[in-house]
Amino acid sequence: MADKLIIFDTTLRDGEQSPGASMTRDEKLRIARQLERLKVDVIEAGFAASSNGDFEAVQSIANAIKDSTICSLSRANDRDISRAAEALKGANSARIHTFIATSALHMEKKLRMTPEQVLEQARQSVRFARNLVADIEFSPEDGYRSDPDFLCRVLEAVIAEGATTINVPDTVGYAIPELYGNFIKTLRERIPNSDKAIWSVHCHNDLGMAVANSLAGVQIGGARQIECTINGLGERAGNCSLEEVVMAIKTRRDYFNLDLNIDAKHIVAASRMVSQTTGFVVQPNKAVVGANAFAHASGIHQDGVLKARDTYEIMRAEDVGWTANKIVLGKLSGRNAFKQRLQELGVSLDSETEINAAFTRFKELADRKAEIFDEDILALVSDESVTAEKEQYGFVSLYQQSETGEQPRARIVFTVDGHEVRGESVGNGPVDASLKAIEAHVKSGAEMVLYSVNAISGSTESQGEVTVRLQNSGRVVNGTGADPDIVVASAKAYLSALNKLQSKADRVAAQG
Amino acid sequence: MADKLIIFDTTLRDGEQSPGASMTRDEKLRIARQLERLKVDVIEAGFAASSNGDFEAVQSIANAIKDSTICSLSRANDRDISRAAEALKGANSARIHTFIATSALHMEKKLRMTPEQVLEQARQSVRFARNLVADIEFSPEDGYRSDPDFLCRVLEAVIAEGATTINVPDTVGYAIPELYGNFIKTLRERIPNSDKAIWSVHCHNDLGMAVANSLAGVQIGGARQIECTINGLGERAGNCSLEEVVMAIKTRRDYFNLDLNIDAKHIVAASRMVSQTTGFVVQPNKAVVGANAFAHASGIHQDGVLKARDTYEIMRAEDVGWTANKIVLGKLSGRNAFKQRLQELGVSLDSETEINAAFTRFKELADRKAEIFDEDILALVSDESVTAEKEQYGFVSLYQQSETGEQPRARIVFTVDGHEVRGESVGNGPVDASLKAIEAHVKSGAEMVLYSVNAISGSTESQGEVTVRLQNSGRVVNGTGADPDIVVASAKAYLSALNKLQSKADRVAAQG
Repeated sequence: MADKLIIFDTTLRDGEQSPGASMTRDEKLRIARQLERLKVDVIEAGFAASSNGDFEAVQSIANAIKDSTICSLSRANDRDISRAAEALKGANSARIHTFIATSALHMEKKLRMTPEQVLEQARQSVRFARNLVADIEFSPEDGYRSDPDFLCRVLEAVIAEGATTINVPDTVGYAIPELYGNFIKTLRERIPNSDKAIWSVHCHNDLGMAVANSLAGVQIGGARQIECTINGLGERAGNCSLEEVVMAIKTRRDYFNLDLNIDAKHIVAASRMVSQTTGFVVQPNKAVVGANAFAHASGIHQDGVLKARDTYEIMRAEDVGWTANKIVLGKLSGRNAFKQRLQELGVSLDSETEINAAFTRFKELADRKAEIFDEDILALVSDESVTAEKEQYGFVSLYQQSETGEQPRARIVFTVDGHEVRGESVGNGPVDASLKAIEAHVKSGAEMVLYSVNAISGSTESQGEVTVRLQNSGRVVNGTGADPDIVVASAKAYLSALNKLQSKADRVAAQG
Repeated sequence: MADKLIIFDTTLRDGEQSPGASMTRDEKLRIARQLERLKVDVIEAGFAASSNGDFEAVQSIANAIKDSTICSLSRANDRDISRAAEALKGANSARIHTFIATSALHMEKKLRMTPEQVLEQARQSVRFARNLVADIEFSPEDGYRSDPDFLCRVLEAVIAEGATTINVPDTVGYAIPELYGNFIKTLRERIPNSDKAIWSVHCHNDLGMAVANSLAGVQIGGARQIECTINGLGERAGNCSLEEVVMAIKTRRDYFNLDLNIDAKHIVAASRMVSQTTGFVVQPNKAVVGANAFAHASGIHQDGVLKARDTYEIMRAEDVGWTANKIVLGKLSGRNAFKQRLQELGVSLDSETEINAAFTRFKELADRKAEIFDEDILALVSDESVTAEKEQYGFVSLYQQSETGEQPRARIVFTVDGHEVRGESVGNGPVDASLKAIEAHVKSGAEMVLYSVNAISGSTESQGEVTVRLQNSGRVVNGTGADPDIVVASAKAYLSALNKLQSKADRVAAQG
C-alpha cells in the first residue's frame, strides 16, 4: 500500500508574508474555502498572536472550514501559543505550529540566546501547547543551516514532549535536493524517537529548487508532509508551489508511489483567486497554472501534438481545471446559469444578497459586452467581494478626457460615508488625473507603490481589472476594481484601496 | 582546479518558441548584445532554416557578436544544416546544433521512421555538418524518454562522426533530479567514446524542476554545459532559468565547485529586456529577478535582516544588478548622462540617430515628470526601438473622453505611409474606442489575443507601457507603446503591432 502524503498549505500565512500580499479576513476566508475544495489536508490560516486582525482571520477560518485541519503559527512562548489555541477553538481539527530558530547565526544575531536557552524554550513551549491541542507541529527555524548535533537534541526533546509533526525548514532557500534529502534522512536515523512524529519539509525558492528539494525530502529523507503555497507565493522568491509539487507526485506516481487527497481540478481556480486577491500576476510560463503551460507554438510541437498528444504533453490541461471552451455566458443567461458558473469556477459567495449584487453587475456588463468569459466573471466577483464590505468610499461617476497637446483632466463623483463629493484634477494621463481628483478631496497622503492592470481575456472589449497598492504609516493594502473602462476601473481600485486603509477589520498580518 | 561549466542560452530559439514571444531581427540582435555582455558562452540565435526572417536574425547576430559562440538549430537533414552553416558564416565562433527524436513515441507517431532509419539519419547529418563547421552539437529529441540501449548506439555513432557536444533533452519536463542525473551518468559510462564530447543538459519546467534537474545532470551525470533561457522563457512552462541556475552554482560553489564566465550583474537588465520585448511579465515572487526576490515583509524577517543580513539572505541584490537608488535622471540631465545611463542599463542603441531620437523623447518626458526612473528609460527606449524601424503607421494625436452613462469615444490622427488620416469610434472604454478608431481606417482584420499593461515603477505618474498582441493569418506579433497617458500608450502599441504585421522583415521564427 502506498503511503499517504500530507499537503500543508501556507498561502494564508507564509504566502501572506510577501510584501504587498496581505489580505483581509474575508479574502482569507474565501481562499480557505477554495483550499478546502482542493482537499488540502492542513491549512495554515495565519499567525494568531501577530495582530488582532490575524487572530480574527484564523478564528473565522477555524469556525467555517470542516474538512481540513486548521493551523496557526506561533512563536515558542506561552502567550503566542495561548492566542493560537484560543483562535482555533471552533475548529473540527486544530493544529498549533510553534517555531524557534536553531541555526548558530539566528540564535546569536537575531534571538541573542544560547543554544541551551533555545533548547529549553522549545521543550517548554511544546509541553505547554500539548495541554491545549493534541496536534502539535514544531519547526526549528533555519533548520537546514543548523548544527546537526544540536538539532538532534532539540528535535528529540520536542518529540518526547509530544510534538506530532517535525518540520525542517530551508528558511533561506539554500538547499540542494540531494543534500536536503540526506539531511532529513540523517536526522531521522539519529534521533531515537523519530518514528513518533511525521516529518515535514518547508522549502523556499531562492535558487529555483523548492519543488525538487521538497520532493527529495520526501523521497530520500522519508518526510510525509510538504508545506507549500498556491502560485508559490511567499517571502522573497516564495515557497514550494502547491500546483507543481502535487502534479509532480501525480504525474510521476511510478517513482514516488504516494497517495494524495488533493482534487487537482480546482487548482486553476485557486491560482486565479490568489492572484486576483493579492494582485500578484502569474507569469505565462509558470508551470501548471501559467497561461502558456499547455500551449504549443512551434510548428514541430504543434504537429507532434496533433499526431499524438503525449509526444509533448505529460499532463492534461483539464485535470488541473483549464477548460477548453471559455465563452460561458451572454446577456440572455439567467441567474441560475450564473450561479452554477460561479460554483464551477470555485467561487462561493456568502449570501443571496451577494449573489444578487454580483448578478446585477453581470447583467450590466452583458448589456455592454456580447461574450462574457470566465475571467470577466472572476473579475466581477472579485470587485464585488471588495465593495460588498462596509465601505467608507464608493464610486458614483467619472468624466475624463485627454487630448494631445493638452493636460489630461478628470472630474469624479464619489461617496464618503454615503454623502456625494466631487473632485477635479489634471494629471500626466487620464488615470493619474482621476486618482488625483480623488486625492484632491480625500488627502490620504498614501503612497502608491504599485499600479497594475491584470490581463483579462485577450481584447480591450473585456473588463479591465486594475490593482492599486497603497502604503501609509507602514501598512500596505491592495485595492482592485473592474470595468470595461480602464480609467473607471483604476478609480474604483483606488477607492477600494482607500477603504482598506481605513477599515479596522483590515490588518497587515504577521507584519506588525 | 575547478571544471568550467558552459552556459548555453537559448532565449532566442527555445524561448522564442513560447506562443506570442516571437521577436523581430532587431529585437533578437539587441538581446544577443545583452547576452554577450552577460558573457554567455554560447548563444543559440535561432533556427535558420525555419524562415527567411530567422535566417536573417541568425546572420545578423553571427556578424555582430564577437565574444560568444553563435549557434543555429537545425533538423537532421542536409538542407537545414546548409542553411544554418550559411547563416553562421560571419561568426567568430560558430556551432551547428542538429537534432532528431529518438524516443519510441516520437519516432513512431511524429517522425514515422524506424529506429534504424533515425540512427542512419543522425549519423549522416553529423557527418555532413562536420564538413561545414567544426563545432557540432547533437540532441536526441525526447532523449530522456528514449530507450537507453538505442540511445547509446545513436550517441556513440554521432560522436564517432565528430559531434563535439552531446545534449540530452528532457523535452517534456518529465525528469526528476536523481533519475535524470543517473540517466546521463549511465550513458557516459556505457558509451565507449563518451569522453570525446562535452555533455549537455536541456530541461523543461513542466513539473517545476528544470533547475534542479539541470544541476543533477551536472553533478551526478557529469554534464558540463547547461542550456537555459532568461526568465525561464520557452515552450509551455519554459526552460531552465539562466538566472536561477547561474546563481545556484555561484551561491553553492562549496558543493558544485565549477567555474562560470557569467557576469551576473547584467542579469536584471537582461531579464527586463526580455520581459519588455516579449510582453511576458515576470511574477513578483520569481527567484532572482522578481520584484520581491530581495524584499522582506514579515516583522520577524525585517528584524533579522537589520540585525544581520545573512540571517535571511543568501545572495546580494547588487550582485545580480538590482540597484538600490532608482531615481536616476531629471529634466536637467544632459545627453551624456542619458547615454551613460543607457549603457549602465545594458541598452546599446545602434546609431547616433537612434540615441538622438531617444534623447528627444526623454526630454519630452522630463518636461512632464519630475523623476525619471530606470523603468521609464527602458520603456522609452523599448518604444523607440520599435518606431525606429521603417514604419507604415505612425501616431500623430489622440482625443478621447469617457463619462459615466455615455459611450466612451475617441478620435485619432495617424499616418499611413506618411499621409495623415483620421479615425473616430466609440467603444466599451476609451482604450477600446481608440483602437476601434484605428481599425475604422486600417481594417486589418487582426484578432487581439493579448492586451497588457506592464507595471512601470509604482505610481500612475510614470509612463505606462502597453503590449498588444495581434494575430492574423497564423502570424502573431507584439507591439509596444509607452506614454504617461495609458490610452495614448495603447494606441501607439496597436500601431506598432500593425507595423510588425505588415513588415516583411518580421517573421514568426520556428513557428511557420
